[in-house]
Amino acid sequence: MTAPDRLSGVLCPVVTPFQQDLRPNAKSLVRQCQWLLSQNVGLAVFGTTSEANSMSVNEKIELLDCLVDAGIDRERLMPGTGCSALSDTVELTRNAVDAGCAGCLMLPPFYYKDVSDDGLFASYAEVIESVGDDNLRIYLYHIPPIAQVGLSIDLIERLVTAYPNTVVGIKDSSGDWENTRAILDRGWDDFRVFAGSERFLLRNMQHGGAGCISATANINPAAIDRLFAAWQTDNAADLQEKLDAIRDVVEEYPIIPAVKAIVASSSDDADWKTVRPPLIALGDERQDSLMKALGRLSFSMPGLLNF
Amino acid sequence: MTAPDRLSGVLCPVVTPFQQDLRPNAKSLVRQCQWLLSQNVGLAVFGTTSEANSMSVNEKIELLDCLVDAGIDRERLMPGTGCSALSDTVELTRNAVDAGCAGCLMLPPFYYKDVSDDGLFASYAEVIESVGDDNLRIYLYHIPPIAQVGLSIDLIERLVTAYPNTVVGIKDSSGDWENTRAILDRGWDDFRVFAGSERFLLRNMQHGGAGCISATANINPAAIDRLFAAWQTDNAADLQEKLDAIRDVVEEYPIIPAVKAIVASSSDDADWKTVRPPLIALGDERQDSLMKALGRLSFSMPGLLNF
Repeated sequence: MTAPDRLSGVLCPVVTPFQQDLRPNAKSLVRQCQWLLSQNVGLAVFGTTSEANSMSVNEKIELLDCLVDAGIDRERLMPGTGCSALSDTVELTRNAVDAGCAGCLMLPPFYYKDVSDDGLFASYAEVIESVGDDNLRIYLYHIPPIAQVGLSIDLIERLVTAYPNTVVGIKDSSGDWENTRAILDRGWDDFRVFAGSERFLLRNMQHGGAGCISATANINPAAIDRLFAAWQTDNAADLQEKLDAIRDVVEEYPIIPAVKAIVASSSDDADWKTVRPPLIALGDERQDSLMKALGRLSFSMPGLLNF
Repeated sequence: MTAPDRLSGVLCPVVTPFQQDLRPNAKSLVRQCQWLLSQNVGLAVFGTTSEANSMSVNEKIELLDCLVDAGIDRERLMPGTGCSALSDTVELTRNAVDAGCAGCLMLPPFYYKDVSDDGLFASYAEVIESVGDDNLRIYLYHIPPIAQVGLSIDLIERLVTAYPNTVVGIKDSSGDWENTRAILDRGWDDFRVFAGSERFLLRNMQHGGAGCISATANINPAAIDRLFAAWQTDNAADLQEKLDAIRDVVEEYPIIPAVKAIVASSSDDADWKTVRPPLIALGDERQDSLMKALGRLSFSMPGLLNF
């Protein structure tokens, strides 16, 4: 196995399809990933939008096995592997590396609050040392609005300094551009900074960022990738504005149920609406109003029905 | 198997012993549980203080097996089974019921924030229906300072109304006596309200509560149980004051590392100090100052060395 290249571009925290009995539907996930790859978007499966933290370690391992068995390009895979429990994070991360994934997107342990940078450093260090594999590439996952436990810039620096070939990037879902910029300003060698939303994609690229990993890449992948490809052109501000308009509509709803409702409508497969508790699926009326609002922006998910 | 009685009294969220390689030490946990039972304190293993959310489902299942195999009284066992992932909560809860435990202490799913009461109700309902066992007794676990996701009194009422023989109590670790009193004021039939700290034990008993489940029951069990037994006597306020003085000292330190450091000192087994990241063990100096401060209050853990 050759060492994985560092990633860039647009990645998607792929929504996880659940059957009505709430079991994951691997076949449907494979199809969705194939479609996303056809839109030139990488696969950050098992992210927040994927309801990854509503699934067990074994469920995630089985789904990843199915993706790899189905021939999904492992160089485009960046599964989320950070759990509340240290031992779960180690197991998922080791499995992802063994499966040949290009990287892991790693939340800090998120149950205990007000933990110290020393404790978080020890947590990442323990995972890295336990997995003990030169092919491990970690993209840190900073999402304080949800995890509550965030990653300070000093902590990131400690990790990059201690593990320069392993801790190779970050997804910043703080929603705070100043924080993303402060990370970029540190200028660590070839450190890949992904914005957590396409809202920041143009600014991120202009300041040396690597791309974005965004919930709405589930439904608007090609357009987001278009901006990634064209960020240096005169067209970029226009493309950014159009992305923001779509995102504005989606954000009027709880974002994970909304994204799943859009996939359900666009694929004509109502099962896609299913979420695991504690999330609640969008009702039919809200789904209709969401699709109508998107329709007014000429939104569509091209080719989805063929997958 | 006869249906379990509802619990009352003092329970302890038992600290989990880890070896230096961070693996749980089942033998040491069994001994600690035997000692706690000798102090007349019940066993809320796998609580927040137990670092339960730093352990995998399998690690917890193996430890519970060891406790039951060692003959620990299952009628005194209330393992924590609430995880971030629905499937993990179902698996742990089913295992606890199959093992014959008197009850389960159940956190809500705690990764996603700003979730609705409908979503939390659906989560508990799904666990109850999936486990599908008349012997399941759930004690809800409200700990907003750490889980961030709390349980509103309306939600509790919905759960008690829908599942009166299953949702039988709560541990209120809000640290807000007004919230505990508001729960007690609802007066649901035989609903067992445990304070999350012995600080509220006397008030809780005076208002119809069932006892307390407290981190410091790991180190001060007999004295806490003494107040529980004597709450209606003239001595009660004095006993409460003495408990508070001990607790005041412990709370000057991060509570989980502090409790483990006290057990380590009192048992002469330095391994007890070990915590899993993201927590950090108390340094030797702080351990010394903690033990000296407790010494000034004539604190001791009687009989611990014999277990």
